Amino acid sequence: MPQRPFVFESRVRFGDTDASGRIFYISLLHHFDAAETEFLRSIGAGYLETQDQHIAFPRVRIECDYTGALKFDDLMAIAVTVNRIGGASFTLSFDVTVESRRAARGKITIVAMDRRTERPIPLPDAVRRALAAAR
Amino acid sequence: MPQRPFVFESRVRFGDTDASGRIFYISLLHHFDAAETEFLRSIGAGYLETQDQHIAFPRVRIECDYTGALKFDDLMAIAVTVNRIGGASFTLSFDVTVESRRAARGKITIVAMDRRTERPIPLPDAVRRALAAAR
Amino acid sequence: MPQRPFVFESRVRFGDTDASGRIFYISLLHHFDAAETEFLRSIGAGYLETQDQHIAFPRVRIECDYTGALKFDDLMAIAVTVNRIGGASFTLSFDVTVESRRAARGKITIVAMDRRTERPIPLPDAVRRALAAAR
Amino acid sequence: MPQRPFVFESRVRFGDTDASGRIFYISLLHHFDAAETEFLRSIGAGYLETQDQHIAFPRVRIECDYTGALKFDDLMAIAVTVNRIGGASFTLSFDVTVESRRAARGKITIVAMDRRTERPIPLPDAVRRALAAAR
Repeated sequence: MPQRPFVFESRVRFGDTDASGRIFYISLLHHFDAAETEFLRSIGAGYLETQDQHIAFPRVRIECDYTGALKFDDLMAIAVTVNRIGGASFTLSFDVTVESRRAARGKITIVAMDRRTERPIPLPDAVRRALAAAR
Repeated sequence: MPQRPFVFESRVRFGDTDASGRIFYISLLHHFDAAETEFLRSIGAGYLETQDQHIAFPRVRIECDYTGALKFDDLMAIAVTVNRIGGASFTLSFDVTVESRRAARGKITIVAMDRRTERPIPLPDAVRRALAAAR
Repeated sequence: MPQRPFVFESRVRFGDTDASGRIFYISLLHHFDAAETEFLRSIGAGYLETQDQHIAFPRVRIECDYTGALKFDDLMAIAVTVNRIGGASFTLSFDVTVESRRAARGKITIVAMDRRTERPIPLPDAVRRALAAAR
Repeated sequence: MPQRPFVFESRVRFGDTDASGRIFYISLLHHFDAAETEFLRSIGAGYLETQDQHIAFPRVRIECDYTGALKFDDLMAIAVTVNRIGGASFTLSFDVTVESRRAARGKITIVAMDRRTERPIPLPDAVRRALAAAR
């Protein structure tokens, strides 16, 4: 059953820009933070479902390629997809377009970690299932 | 015994600017956050001395007047002084100059709060004494 | 003719929080930045209508009182109203509620400035009219 | 002539943390922004030397691996080195340690771009020479 990808719309705010007149590259990542939260909520693996006093979900890797200009007030469409599901971690992809023009592509890897030992642990089943269903 | 005021030096970073070519007004407040931490450390009321699992120190009011331009790479001198010591809160002042030219002046009010009841409580004696000695 | 106030909805993002588990006080102001842009757009005094190569609109004063807790994932309703219209500047008010519980109230003053002389100038008529109609 | 690497010291600020009690992953990148500026200044390829009304230096790629915890008030040592010098771009590496414990490693790629055409252009000779001398 084909599904349309999850798309989070977010606008470049004035505070996101820098003296170049474009988005400051780090500012884009804050939009990814919002897109990630809404994507996980949409697949049933959101904050409420996954919070656990014993497990944290730190990000262990981020990367982003900036391929087109993003300027103040641009309305970005950020498509979020599941890129990889590993044993203790998963990777999400973020594709940013403005009026169908590609502007950036990023990836974020999130690991399940035991809060006490600070060591990776297997992804909780509910998270794994939700991610698998969303691929 | 007169003392020179506490001055925290901080530079306007590229990410602090916006498309106007000046500092984005909110970015300045992040420099106040750093200046506040270093001021409190300098008077012996820093994080290590005041952290307490029962007391939090949320900010309950901020204000800032922007009186001069701040641009990329400007080296700011942020003078921090104790503006007011109340029963459950205190206010710090932040005076920002660049090469002796005044650029901004802000105030932040911090309250002592019982983490459990989320109600204000009297300032801990050690904090009160440290602030009083710094006036 | 009574009008309902302009309300901008915005969610507390994970990156907005700090180690206290609540919103970091400065982070709220970034939501005001978005609310301001959308309010001005809604009254016809937005970026497109007001940009002018000769006039800038820097913020000259900000204040905010934090009266209630804001935590991760809270959906804030930020009501924006025109607080004051002066000769060369205007002030907007921001009232933040979460599920009708008041959480914060801020004000931002914006001045019309000649880019060349860096001196205040009278508010452009179109901006003044739009603000007056929105009161 | 061996040289010690360039190291920029920067402290994790309260506003850098998130509700996990650790640094918010994006906040680290703002410290890289400061480290990059100071590194380029140190090798004579800083803002003053390289600003040109015809050339911009946007970042086209970033990546970062987070390998250890960073918490409030940690004093980070950020070692900056030249990772790659290409025809129109260069890549800097950022190695973050706290008390000699490795915490993160990032890379940022910066391209020389003609402001008018928005196309990459050869790195200015002065920048290329400064980077080559710093390897």
